[in-house]
Amino acid sequence: MGGDRAPDEIVAGARQAHEEFGIPVVLVGRPDDITDPGPLEVVGASEVIPMDADPGSSVRRMKDSSLVRAAELVRDGKASAMVSAGNTGATMASALLRMGRIKGVARPAIATPIPDPVGQPCVLLDAGANSDCQPEWLVQFAQMGAIYSRDRYGVERPKVGLLSIGEESTKGNSLVKETHALLADPAWAEAVGAEFIGNIEGRDLMASVADVCVTDGFTGNVTLKSLEGGMRSLIGALLGVFDSTDEAREAAATLLPALEPLYRQLDPENTGGALLLGVDGVCIISHGSSSATAIRNAVRTGAEMVESGLVESIRTAVARS
Amino acid sequence: MGGDRAPDEIVAGARQAHEEFGIPVVLVGRPDDITDPGPLEVVGASEVIPMDADPGSSVRRMKDSSLVRAAELVRDGKASAMVSAGNTGATMASALLRMGRIKGVARPAIATPIPDPVGQPCVLLDAGANSDCQPEWLVQFAQMGAIYSRDRYGVERPKVGLLSIGEESTKGNSLVKETHALLADPAWAEAVGAEFIGNIEGRDLMASVADVCVTDGFTGNVTLKSLEGGMRSLIGALLGVFDSTDEAREAAATLLPALEPLYRQLDPENTGGALLLGVDGVCIISHGSSSATAIRNAVRTGAEMVESGLVESIRTAVARS
Repeated sequence: MGGDRAPDEIVAGARQAHEEFGIPVVLVGRPDDITDPGPLEVVGASEVIPMDADPGSSVRRMKDSSLVRAAELVRDGKASAMVSAGNTGATMASALLRMGRIKGVARPAIATPIPDPVGQPCVLLDAGANSDCQPEWLVQFAQMGAIYSRDRYGVERPKVGLLSIGEESTKGNSLVKETHALLADPAWAEAVGAEFIGNIEGRDLMASVADVCVTDGFTGNVTLKSLEGGMRSLIGALLGVFDSTDEAREAAATLLPALEPLYRQLDPENTGGALLLGVDGVCIISHGSSSATAIRNAVRTGAEMVESGLVESIRTAVARS
Repeated sequence: MGGDRAPDEIVAGARQAHEEFGIPVVLVGRPDDITDPGPLEVVGASEVIPMDADPGSSVRRMKDSSLVRAAELVRDGKASAMVSAGNTGATMASALLRMGRIKGVARPAIATPIPDPVGQPCVLLDAGANSDCQPEWLVQFAQMGAIYSRDRYGVERPKVGLLSIGEESTKGNSLVKETHALLADPAWAEAVGAEFIGNIEGRDLMASVADVCVTDGFTGNVTLKSLEGGMRSLIGALLGVFDSTDEAREAAATLLPALEPLYRQLDPENTGGALLLGVDGVCIISHGSSSATAIRNAVRTGAEMVESGLVESIRTAVARS
């Protein structure tokens, strides 16, 4: 029921995931609004948490909302993962309150893949779950991000960088400097088969430098939205030029087939959504503007992360550290 | 003497600024290395602070360095502004120690214009001078940024936004929330003829939403470098597609004249460098990779900011607040 284009695009995407990949999807929401579920099971939930509602109080109050019910399905073993394009904060709160945290995890974090035009995505976390962070949390983010990079992108020994404003360990704000000292101890990395490559800078994010980029949720969210906005702005300006004259339109038409793979590579619709790592179940947070394609990809990512045993791997790593 | 392409490109840019705009430029550095100063005066300085040297100790130790001498020329009224493509930290330290702070300014900040494909740049500050900030400093950044936006881009009533992770005043980390409360008091804005438009997000930076974007130096620097890196990565990938086949090359050649203005608009070479606001003189920090064109534009910006009375306006505003 969540997302700017719910429920129709969401239902369509879920059906695509079922048809194309054979994933059994359960739709959670108001049965009357889900007019075309096809072969998918519908679990009724009478309430919908609005996109701009206060997360904490909504989740506590609206016990029969689609978000809370979806998280309960995972908690009760009736679903293996949840996917939502709804209110991000309410999605996190539902997952946190109903599935709970993995034992030993201080704070769950949102892991978002940043597309790279020529390489595989760099997993950025925390992309917005925790505005104020402590150094120890960032070490766990590094571990969870490394496991995710391995499970999701098959990176055998993920390279983990700490987002800062210079490569030297002395560069950064106090949080980054304290975190750098903790990350320099190889124990955390050995526990998950990762490698700490030191500080990285903003310009390294789309340049195949690191597999995982660790930061606090404020910086991560600002960075992510800046990149999204910058890309959108540049692509918009390019399309404007492409459409400026007859001659330009013709030339652009010639280039379009070659530009399409690049566009697909960068389109957030294709990243499969962000993962809330650290909760005791797979929880995927999709963009509010998600189309059917975005939901299809998010459902597929959810299924893959269940099959890879992501949650168990995080549990084991955290218990060992 | 500073910058990856010094001294030749720097000297060439200074000569261009002199020839094209009639700006009297004084070159500061090793006379033997400045082989072709043309009609420009050379002030000797025997030392060069390396790009990767520790700023504070270098500036204190290397008293006959080009950076320290340049800052002294401004302090002594022999130059009206300084421009450097050298070590950023050492440029700041030289300006701070030799020119001094404007009375009442808590911390100088780096103001960097972020290009906008369709509008005028948004001035981002602090772009890296202060990694850890206090809310009161950000209020001064807002004032200084508004004055700069007016003097540099002719914005009569600059719209100032606070960089955060959501529009609501409750969104952000603790620094942002405390700063929002201070910025909500209209007194600071009235003192400089600006308007506070509340929180803005990363995606607004290249979307003509605000004239000035206020943030701490850590977030600002990460954001700026992320945008620069993202743009470079996307443009690189586009050029790859444009050069992929004979057909693509031909179509790209047709589009190039129409793409050039966009490229010029976004090229950091054309922004005229960043300003260190809050020191008692005009100090321009250019990119380490600055070409002659970048230096020419930086010198022009320096001259314009001297003529506009930027430093005096900041002095007056801070004294009044």
